Amino acid sequence: MKSALRQAIQDLPVSSIREIANAGMGQPGVLAFWFGESDQTTPEVVVEAARKSLADGETFYAHNLGLPALREAIATYTSERHRPVGMDRIAVTSAGVNALMLAVQAVVSPGDEVVVVVPVWPNLVAQPRIMGAQVRTVSLRPDAAGAWRLDLNELLSAVSARTRLLVVNSPNNPTGWTLTRDEQAAILAHCRQTGTVILADEVYERLYYRGATPDEAAPSFLDIAEPDDALMVAHSFSKSFLMTGWRLGWLVLPRGWVDVVGKLIEFNTSCASVFVQRGALAALAHRNELVPPIVAHLRHCRATLHDALQGIEGLRTTAADGGMYAWLQLPAAAGRPADGRAQALRLVAEARLGLAPGGAFADESAQWLRWCFASRDPARLVDGVARLKNWLALH
Amino acid sequence: MKSALRQAIQDLPVSSIREIANAGMGQPGVLAFWFGESDQTTPEVVVEAARKSLADGETFYAHNLGLPALREAIATYTSERHRPVGMDRIAVTSAGVNALMLAVQAVVSPGDEVVVVVPVWPNLVAQPRIMGAQVRTVSLRPDAAGAWRLDLNELLSAVSARTRLLVVNSPNNPTGWTLTRDEQAAILAHCRQTGTVILADEVYERLYYRGATPDEAAPSFLDIAEPDDALMVAHSFSKSFLMTGWRLGWLVLPRGWVDVVGKLIEFNTSCASVFVQRGALAALAHRNELVPPIVAHLRHCRATLHDALQGIEGLRTTAADGGMYAWLQLPAAAGRPADGRAQALRLVAEARLGLAPGGAFADESAQWLRWCFASRDPARLVDGVARLKNWLALH
Repeated sequence: MKSALRQAIQDLPVSSIREIANAGMGQPGVLAFWFGESDQTTPEVVVEAARKSLADGETFYAHNLGLPALREAIATYTSERHRPVGMDRIAVTSAGVNALMLAVQAVVSPGDEVVVVVPVWPNLVAQPRIMGAQVRTVSLRPDAAGAWRLDLNELLSAVSARTRLLVVNSPNNPTGWTLTRDEQAAILAHCRQTGTVILADEVYERLYYRGATPDEAAPSFLDIAEPDDALMVAHSFSKSFLMTGWRLGWLVLPRGWVDVVGKLIEFNTSCASVFVQRGALAALAHRNELVPPIVAHLRHCRATLHDALQGIEGLRTTAADGGMYAWLQLPAAAGRPADGRAQALRLVAEARLGLAPGGAFADESAQWLRWCFASRDPARLVDGVARLKNWLALH
Repeated sequence: MKSALRQAIQDLPVSSIREIANAGMGQPGVLAFWFGESDQTTPEVVVEAARKSLADGETFYAHNLGLPALREAIATYTSERHRPVGMDRIAVTSAGVNALMLAVQAVVSPGDEVVVVVPVWPNLVAQPRIMGAQVRTVSLRPDAAGAWRLDLNELLSAVSARTRLLVVNSPNNPTGWTLTRDEQAAILAHCRQTGTVILADEVYERLYYRGATPDEAAPSFLDIAEPDDALMVAHSFSKSFLMTGWRLGWLVLPRGWVDVVGKLIEFNTSCASVFVQRGALAALAHRNELVPPIVAHLRHCRATLHDALQGIEGLRTTAADGGMYAWLQLPAAAGRPADGRAQALRLVAEARLGLAPGGAFADESAQWLRWCFASRDPARLVDGVARLKNWLALH
């Protein structure tokens, strides 16, 4: 009976992150760092705006593209740190992942070639496959210290006139790698030549740690692209505003695309809930109070975890340029598996430490582990490193 | 630049319902019956459950398939009026339309043949097109009185071993036509032979007016199918619980499919918000207080509108078997357009009456109009008919 399901869908890998989480969730006392989510609840001002909207009876259908006031607020927010963008280029979506899926539906026809830079959140590879695309991956490679870097020439050689779409996530989940301005400029110039659409997943742009100021965002394609460039940028309220469970994101689109994407929204989810959008409006209205402390806290978490990991001899890691993950390779030893999935399963069972296996993000990173450092209490991170250290000493 | 967008997506029709609504929304005093939505807000007990969840800090990611408690409650609700279904066959989705889109993604590969019974909500035709399918439509046909009926043999001839998926919406939006048990049995038997998956959009099942009891649901494929039949049934909280703006639905799936659909949920929206699911749990917990009065009120609205329409000489309509729409053809006259879209545009401008054009649902129904009778105050329906009558007298 399963044969009635598409083979391409059956073949999509089940998340091995979920596998580890499922193995650990039943166990008491596991320190979980497997998901890309803070353990902090959404700020009160956001929650209250949604609660008020519900009490006010805002329980009806909304515009496919989102509340005009929210699209305007997103345009303002975007324009504050990038080239000016009008609300006519903004579409509100039912989650960041939904923004990415809509973008893929808009440009990828069956059989099209799609290039994806990996390691990456597995959804970015799965979405074009669902649409019947031929997916090619270009992998970052680790340097001696453990920082994963792009070979720009390799990427540019992979993107040809046959390439319909290039998908790149920077700051990158899981590696923390972040595109430089020069790399973005070279990619944009190349894709203009080949006629390739760029889908940039920039949901971690505010979680950037290499800027000249603590509040500086990561380099964005929106800093250099023209309104008519074939560039779609996907965003989410999840990370910068602690709103993972709200399922709200947006797309910044080329001039003239928004109505076509609006049709796709109608056919996928029709619209986002008004009360959820009211929460997002409050988040943006209070952005200057809300985001800087969240980023400052994550910066502290990142340093705390990175410093603690330095105490483990032979462990390979560098501090992430952006995002909210440490990315690491355990020291090799005769008695331990080299495979990240096997390591993660044993760490949950034997050390009550929940990490995500690197193989979830690319075959090339099967021996690596991802550690989400978004933790309300940074002491949890230090505890986790102690557990890892003890486990390594014993095994 | 638009050329970078897929031609198949650009070619998807913009909703002509939206066109009429946009034309009317700027005008004061328009009586709007264009959308498929009641003007009643969501019941308080549902709203309060979501508000409490938000206050309790339930703002994190949830399971792809939905809260186990909600899946269990949906299984119980389904089993109350159909063959028993376990929660292992239930997937919670981000809207009813999202349930339909996920179902199509699960089985339709590029180039597959999909048969859709029309007239129908345009999303059901658009979704397989987005996935690169070849869509064939089989149209209901009006009898002399104006009731649209299925030619079962025509449908069965259209569904062959080449047909991957049959999409049928019953009770039907817009015509009110509802499949009989015998027709369902014949379709199921035929699709077993041809190996065709059935996607049944049964979101209006509670809004059924031909039952032996006022609370009887419409005939459902779930009454006759085996757990291993290739049948997916899409549902929504929107209609029976007045929760349109909540964007929550579900799929009842064949045995063994739920994990594969869970993967697709991960890649489309990841999950529904927990606080939205808490609202749905409250809705189901109070189903026996909430749904019967909603259905009784719609039954009254249906009769009110139908009776009023009888006062218009030459107007072609029959009382809907199910759903929440009157479906009608205006009497022909020399001075009036025969086209529903032209009629609807003029009705908004000249009579301040907002109806949906039949051409939105099928080419075959281009001369028809849809009138949503879900109205808090049934007197609005009578007012609307008076406006229509006056307009017909003048034009």
